[in-house]
Amino acid sequence: MSLEKYIREVQDFPKEGIGFKDITPLLLNSNARNECLTILLSAVKDKKIDKVIGVESRGFFFGILLAEALNVGFIPVRKPKKLPYETISASYDLEYGSDSLEIHIDAIQKGDKVLIHDDVLATGGTAKAVCELVERLGGEIVQVNFLMELSFLNGRQKLDGKELFTALTY
Amino acid sequence: MSLEKYIREVQDFPKEGIGFKDITPLLLNSNARNECLTILLSAVKDKKIDKVIGVESRGFFFGILLAEALNVGFIPVRKPKKLPYETISASYDLEYGSDSLEIHIDAIQKGDKVLIHDDVLATGGTAKAVCELVERLGGEIVQVNFLMELSFLNGRQKLDGKELFTALTY
Repeated sequence: MSLEKYIREVQDFPKEGIGFKDITPLLLNSNARNECLTILLSAVKDKKIDKVIGVESRGFFFGILLAEALNVGFIPVRKPKKLPYETISASYDLEYGSDSLEIHIDAIQKGDKVLIHDDVLATGGTAKAVCELVERLGGEIVQVNFLMELSFLNGRQKLDGKELFTALTY
Repeated sequence: MSLEKYIREVQDFPKEGIGFKDITPLLLNSNARNECLTILLSAVKDKKIDKVIGVESRGFFFGILLAEALNVGFIPVRKPKKLPYETISASYDLEYGSDSLEIHIDAIQKGDKVLIHDDVLATGGTAKAVCELVERLGGEIVQVNFLMELSFLNGRQKLDGKELFTALTY
């Protein structure tokens, strides 16, 4: 099965000149979704994982599916002020300005082996901020995986030293 | 297993005087999460379901887990301007003002049997807007389910005539 068929390119979203990769057709087709989940799981076979992080909000989809398939805890990493309990936060640069992500302080225990999932590896800023959160709480990052990588944005450079896996590369 | 143990009450979130029901402990404990999923699934046993909707963004968690367990399509209903393709939208009242939700126009085909999931049934405004979206696209609502119901807010009244199910009631 070609997963690319289930990624829809939408022109000029969120702004003019950008070709957005829409994953909703992949979510809607249960065969394609399962195939994608199987690919992500195959890349962590034989690895011990205690918890899976999904990054707000498109990372929530396969993040929690991975946690369920691995039968381990799921942790949402969210935009500021969305998590109700005590958090720590890490910021990352945007094209203009910056934004930040938060995690509950009790989500990770020292030594937890953590799989991080997000939908897209673009510039790598978001994923790097999530890695920082995990490491500040004492977690060990087993792998950072993505549905797709926009390789022309060189996000891998920012994640030097981390094990990365992507189901699709553009 | 008592699922209540995994719902953490956080005082004064998102604003003073509100006791917020935090589901992150439930997501983090794979046994409790599975128990909750089993309860939600038992309420749709023997029902034919073609697609599951999860409502942004806490409805995404169990929404996609339900879709996966039922082996059917998953549809995210999102806040304005988050979905990249063509959408229709429905608005709902907030304490002050209003907000709206969107769905992709090609997410539902006429006659599709749809299960709607969100984390909390509060005033029912959000769920009612989602029902409107489904029906405008020609879908049939099989059930609207929630992790929990804040029964003192009388949200059921707004969803008169729909089959409702909640795993926990406060």
